Amino acid sequence: MKRLATTDAQFEQAFAALLNDRSSVETSVAEPVRAILTDVRARGDAALCDYTNRFDNLNLKPETIRIDADDIAREAARVPQDLVEALAVAATRIESFHRAQAPRDLHYTDSDAVTLGMRWTPLDAVGLYVPGGKAAYPSSVLMNALPARVAGVSRIAMCVPCPGGVLNPLVLAAAQIAGVTEIYRVGGAQAVAALAYGTATIAPVDRIVGPGNAYVAEAKRQVFGHVGIDSIAGPSEVVIVADAHNDARFVALDLLAQAEHDELAQAVLITDDAVFANAVIGAVEHELRTLPRAAIASRSWEDHGVVILVRDWDEAVSVTNRLAPEHLEVMLDSPEVFAAGIRHAGAIFLGRYCPEAVGDYVGGPNHVLPTSRTARFASGLSVFDFLKRTTTIATGPDGLRRIGPAGVALAQAEGLDAHALSLSARLDALTGET
Amino acid sequence: MKRLATTDAQFEQAFAALLNDRSSVETSVAEPVRAILTDVRARGDAALCDYTNRFDNLNLKPETIRIDADDIAREAARVPQDLVEALAVAATRIESFHRAQAPRDLHYTDSDAVTLGMRWTPLDAVGLYVPGGKAAYPSSVLMNALPARVAGVSRIAMCVPCPGGVLNPLVLAAAQIAGVTEIYRVGGAQAVAALAYGTATIAPVDRIVGPGNAYVAEAKRQVFGHVGIDSIAGPSEVVIVADAHNDARFVALDLLAQAEHDELAQAVLITDDAVFANAVIGAVEHELRTLPRAAIASRSWEDHGVVILVRDWDEAVSVTNRLAPEHLEVMLDSPEVFAAGIRHAGAIFLGRYCPEAVGDYVGGPNHVLPTSRTARFASGLSVFDFLKRTTTIATGPDGLRRIGPAGVALAQAEGLDAHALSLSARLDALTGET
Repeated sequence: MKRLATTDAQFEQAFAALLNDRSSVETSVAEPVRAILTDVRARGDAALCDYTNRFDNLNLKPETIRIDADDIAREAARVPQDLVEALAVAATRIESFHRAQAPRDLHYTDSDAVTLGMRWTPLDAVGLYVPGGKAAYPSSVLMNALPARVAGVSRIAMCVPCPGGVLNPLVLAAAQIAGVTEIYRVGGAQAVAALAYGTATIAPVDRIVGPGNAYVAEAKRQVFGHVGIDSIAGPSEVVIVADAHNDARFVALDLLAQAEHDELAQAVLITDDAVFANAVIGAVEHELRTLPRAAIASRSWEDHGVVILVRDWDEAVSVTNRLAPEHLEVMLDSPEVFAAGIRHAGAIFLGRYCPEAVGDYVGGPNHVLPTSRTARFASGLSVFDFLKRTTTIATGPDGLRRIGPAGVALAQAEGLDAHALSLSARLDALTGET
Repeated sequence: MKRLATTDAQFEQAFAALLNDRSSVETSVAEPVRAILTDVRARGDAALCDYTNRFDNLNLKPETIRIDADDIAREAARVPQDLVEALAVAATRIESFHRAQAPRDLHYTDSDAVTLGMRWTPLDAVGLYVPGGKAAYPSSVLMNALPARVAGVSRIAMCVPCPGGVLNPLVLAAAQIAGVTEIYRVGGAQAVAALAYGTATIAPVDRIVGPGNAYVAEAKRQVFGHVGIDSIAGPSEVVIVADAHNDARFVALDLLAQAEHDELAQAVLITDDAVFANAVIGAVEHELRTLPRAAIASRSWEDHGVVILVRDWDEAVSVTNRLAPEHLEVMLDSPEVFAAGIRHAGAIFLGRYCPEAVGDYVGGPNHVLPTSRTARFASGLSVFDFLKRTTTIATGPDGLRRIGPAGVALAQAEGLDAHALSLSARLDALTGET
């Protein structure tokens, strides 16, 4: 864990190094991923089965790539009723927030007699990648599938690796609640390839979303352009801004909730009180003694944890904007005032009773958020990821007479004579008429 | 030029080949681009100058990378007044349409006493790539810069290659009208690298937009993740749906307006009348005799032009959706009826007096549009490209009591105990209070 203070003479240098460290996501798996993509594109199901056999220790055949409806129903039925109800609470709240996001079309005629419009339409088919093994989270299924359904996507194809053939009942129950029925037991770069290019069993999709490991992220990067993708997900991170009036244990648990995700996860505390900072650090150490995932969490906290001591909250705003965190908790008396100054963050959690875990599960907004400082330019998953815009222009003779001549002048200036003629031929015809 | 008819026995096969041909954008420049990016990242301005010297035949030094204000003013002043006025007409209409796009924030408290919000904020810094040489179009400068300004981006850095050191007065005049003052005389993958990673002269940006050649497109693909990018632009394309009541010459000119862009551009006519199709084909050939860019346009028309004869307009809707064209002209009596069935298109031009050239210059909607069938999942440039969303969740004790327990159950089921504790510790404290 690093300790910084804005009063340190070396603060700027140390903070810049911190920023640079988090934003340089280097990948060394480009070549093996390229080989897998090429192979799946060429050999389809056969390649998909070969890689699944090799990487997931699962002897797959084309006819068992898809998890059939009976398997889904049987596994989902094993989930205890209280968990099904918790998933339903989450699903209802996620669906409701994403419905509120839905944008409106534009349609108006302006003073030049030109009618302009912008229409939002859903994608036809979306691929959802759900990480396998210990990171197969049912909450991720809801967070990825429900915005697509709210957007009106008619086909959602889900891929989830099943190492050793073991199905995850919670993931399948979440899929059931989210209305996803097309599910394949494949993962890794090979699953991304199948979704992007299609195989005999898996029809190609238009966009692939969902978090994954370095191979999945690189595969998404490589198929980008052929299909759409969401942001490349890196390790998760939280910035917690807290004054001394907080319970140090609450803050410590929130930091650890981030740290327990992944050894590379980053938990950052920003506070104006050195004594409180020490109390939180002590509480983290205390909780680590009993936390089940202490091995992961302590590695994350030791290697990537940061405590930044600031002079005042204005400084904290500035430091936070430079970090552009995926998650930001504001545990202050007037959290809205602080949040108003934040320009870059994936999601903000306001108040002393609103830990990030609320947003991970049941808040309603999406928990798939921009990592590695990409909140500077990227946003969390939303209905917008599953919609695209078509603009429309309608001009009749009146509109063309008014705006056409400027178009002719610009087309001629750009040396695009057919462009100019396509306008001027019509304008000439109209002049002939009048 | 290919002729297809939906009544052909081989139509499905030929049409599928056509689709596949346009969507498989293979790039062979990944390795040289990777080398350039690495070099610029390591050596900054020195590498930028070296590549500019080599590729643009321009002996650049760090102090001449930026085009100074005097140069911009002097070059812009050379543009004739009528063209300045035409640029102003275009700028006003583009700005007005993009203002209408601006989305609204969300903020509401729901029945669980949870306050949810979604805020749109502009990016801090955007890089605009403007192609050089013969493809340095002032209209592109307006189309890229104005949405960023409307979104509220405070810094716009423009890169335009200037082969042989020649400045393009129209491009600089357009930049002036769009309020862009930070302009660099560099292009290619090296310019993308400078914008993404920064050099001593060019501060890094958060997102890079604008069309470019294969090197620029590949460079954008490779820096994606470190910065945001817009869609990878491929060759331009138009689909024109026209009945026999159109002037064949108008349709021919519209096809050629697409074909004159680029040898790889694609112009497609869909009609229900074989005699009219022949008339258009004849008119294309006639116009090619005098068109200044006939060499480019005839290569495009010969190699990529397509005429598709359909039985009826329902078939035309279906064929158009599968093509997912960048531009769609609907030259029918009730174009809105036809357009209502279109699910995938970048921009639609409605009516017999609304050629695509209207939208290229003065319509208002953006002319930077998704190519190569990516309108299936992508959209034209807009204010949305320069904004990102931050979601907010605020819960007090009441809200946490209502939704917290479901979160605890899900966190425990996912094996994330610190997540569960961060909720349950607060819930326990609240129980103790009451």
